[in-house]
Amino acid sequence: MLRPQDIIRKKRDGGTLTREEIEFFVRGAANDEIADYQSSALLMAVFLNGMNEEEQNALTQAMLHSGEILNFSEIQKPKADKHSTGGVGDKTSLIIAPLAAACGLCVPMISGRGLGHTGGTLDKLESIPGYRVRLSLEEFRSTLERIGFAMMGQTAELAPADKKLYALRDATATVEAIPLIVASIMSKKLAAGLDTLVLDVKTGSGAFMRDEEDAMKLARALVGTGNSCGVRTEALITDMNQPLGQAVGNALETKECIEIMRGEAAEGARPVLELSVELTARMLTNSGLESSLDAARERVHKALDDGSALECFRKNVEAQGGDARVCDEPGKVLDLKLGGVKVESRRKGFINRIDAAEIGLAVAAIGGGRVRVEDRIDPAVGFIAEAKIGDRIGDSESLGALYCRSESQFEEASARIRAAYEINDEPPQTLPKLIKGVISV
Amino acid sequence: MLRPQDIIRKKRDGGTLTREEIEFFVRGAANDEIADYQSSALLMAVFLNGMNEEEQNALTQAMLHSGEILNFSEIQKPKADKHSTGGVGDKTSLIIAPLAAACGLCVPMISGRGLGHTGGTLDKLESIPGYRVRLSLEEFRSTLERIGFAMMGQTAELAPADKKLYALRDATATVEAIPLIVASIMSKKLAAGLDTLVLDVKTGSGAFMRDEEDAMKLARALVGTGNSCGVRTEALITDMNQPLGQAVGNALETKECIEIMRGEAAEGARPVLELSVELTARMLTNSGLESSLDAARERVHKALDDGSALECFRKNVEAQGGDARVCDEPGKVLDLKLGGVKVESRRKGFINRIDAAEIGLAVAAIGGGRVRVEDRIDPAVGFIAEAKIGDRIGDSESLGALYCRSESQFEEASARIRAAYEINDEPPQTLPKLIKGVISV
Repeated sequence: MLRPQDIIRKKRDGGTLTREEIEFFVRGAANDEIADYQSSALLMAVFLNGMNEEEQNALTQAMLHSGEILNFSEIQKPKADKHSTGGVGDKTSLIIAPLAAACGLCVPMISGRGLGHTGGTLDKLESIPGYRVRLSLEEFRSTLERIGFAMMGQTAELAPADKKLYALRDATATVEAIPLIVASIMSKKLAAGLDTLVLDVKTGSGAFMRDEEDAMKLARALVGTGNSCGVRTEALITDMNQPLGQAVGNALETKECIEIMRGEAAEGARPVLELSVELTARMLTNSGLESSLDAARERVHKALDDGSALECFRKNVEAQGGDARVCDEPGKVLDLKLGGVKVESRRKGFINRIDAAEIGLAVAAIGGGRVRVEDRIDPAVGFIAEAKIGDRIGDSESLGALYCRSESQFEEASARIRAAYEINDEPPQTLPKLIKGVISV
Repeated sequence: MLRPQDIIRKKRDGGTLTREEIEFFVRGAANDEIADYQSSALLMAVFLNGMNEEEQNALTQAMLHSGEILNFSEIQKPKADKHSTGGVGDKTSLIIAPLAAACGLCVPMISGRGLGHTGGTLDKLESIPGYRVRLSLEEFRSTLERIGFAMMGQTAELAPADKKLYALRDATATVEAIPLIVASIMSKKLAAGLDTLVLDVKTGSGAFMRDEEDAMKLARALVGTGNSCGVRTEALITDMNQPLGQAVGNALETKECIEIMRGEAAEGARPVLELSVELTARMLTNSGLESSLDAARERVHKALDDGSALECFRKNVEAQGGDARVCDEPGKVLDLKLGGVKVESRRKGFINRIDAAEIGLAVAAIGGGRVRVEDRIDPAVGFIAEAKIGDRIGDSESLGALYCRSESQFEEASARIRAAYEINDEPPQTLPKLIKGVISV
């Protein structure tokens, strides 16, 4: 008979766990037959001694099979999704889901909320008055069927072992271990019953993986596990050394996305467009809807230019209870009554580095995100990051505009944001490249 | 403010914990302010990343101060104790406590019960009809004052953090880590308010530390921590490659001890006498009662020869409710009605190796010890290990005598015991030396 302490001892001593041992542990942790203190000891042993590829795949599959796996086989389209490891101003899901749907994919997108410096898709969607992200499975299915994409939050039925283990990891400093990250991300994503998945693995000052090498490792692990679970998976390694686009904050980011879909985006929002196009194009090729990336990119651009992506988004907003006029007049429908106040540079020179996480945290601290899980979101606050790495900036010139509720919020957030910009006399030697690499099997 | 997950993270990343962090954790674990799953994650991080000497001392002191520390300062004698890391047939406490008391020391001995292959002093004492090891603190104190030694079990007031953490370690495969072992042993021992402590660190096939190098490491760590806590501490590294003396089993071991104190011991019991004398002599020199080891050994031998050790034991048995006639007729008072049945060798040759742990487990399995914590002890069963490493043995010759309740017990235990003896044509190259080393500061 398997005993938890023997499995812990094996991993503690650097051994390789069998599929059976991993399944026993995940099942036990999920249904409370194994004590939390035993689970957390194993998590720490995994953190410190690692897992090989087979163990990582077995862990992912055990977590995936701890709950329901959605099945949309009655929808006659390839099921595809995108997942980002999280960043600041990282809003591409709001564009990619309707864009991919407009191009013929079925996108059952199960998203998360923001925590710490990173934003969350669900919070952004909820900045649209009335928009509901808590759908019954039947609502999700019918929206998906009619419109091509649907957006909802994680439910208790999908990968419940992840919910349990993630809470333990958060409380025991065992979050940042590749096999645990991989199993957590992939078990949730694969529970949506996908054929293909494109991953946006971010690296830089505003990413979970600050170091590019680490991001590559994580991407390789995610791609390996996705494919081994029968889901065609590809990853882009993308830059998160500065906010993606300009907007940071929920209503501001939603507005930026709608403007992009309306073809009205500011020049500073171009990286959001570019990354959304690239990720969506790969969803199309990986799903077999297009045979070349060039053809896929063309099709994606067309769906943007002819307004079909925006139409798809409009239908989804209607279906999920939101005020669809947001597609026509985002500035009026979204809570954007706050005026932006300039955050001024205190010296002149070239922007060499931006601490993007600090910008995310400054916005979160005034209500734009969550410092703690239980915090409430204020959709109206945020920051428009105008100045970018490499920009020449004068003394007292604007770094960007801060949207906040009070003078004290402004003082607190503007000081943090200002300090996040490193301005030197010399320009930086290189500018960050948006897409740094592609990982396929 | 200190947060458990930050402390876990620090140790996870190989950092050094401060005294304040260690105290925060031990206090929180003991009073349930820190969740068990956080404690077990830290225990695993400590297991895998270790602790330096300062951390180990801080951990010991924090665990010591999690409860009451006994104070016998009104007794005008040096307070001294002995602790063994546990073995098979390891019964010296029953001799050392009265012997040291007869030589003028105050010995507040707080002992444990047997588990797995190792026996426990409390179980041995309870083989004496009526003997009570559950004393109130006042009974313990007055017995100590009148007789010079008293024996009892761990109480809830002494080092409660250890009780909590030990249970977690047992369930999470984090027992065998030197800093955790050191803190567990020393916090309990030092809670008795000692001036000096002699440690018997066993090594070999029946010891916790099979490898001599590991035993040396543990001994150094224990000695360092004891001294850093202001208790003069010394350790002997002693052999546990075969049962110590002959008797294994509670009544049999108690009988062997009384026979030694009566000067009637069999030749095979000599190592018990030798080790008891050496450990007690060191208690006398370390306490300052004797200035040289030779003088101390002489005094110890005298207390044995003139019967004062046995008298001291008799008074303690009376004081703790036992039948003191055991000192005169151990064979009649103890439950030794079972007859010993020979376990015969199946081949001739020289005994090269004995798996002492297996002998301990075989005896435990028929009731002589505990396989699980909740098992009940049968004091009458046991094994008299006559044949020793290096002995020449004929085919069908006796390895020893097994005392058990039924034929099926005999079959089960004799097969295990027989298999524990490795008999070869050639004699072993060396015989195990009883005392392998001494560790002082």
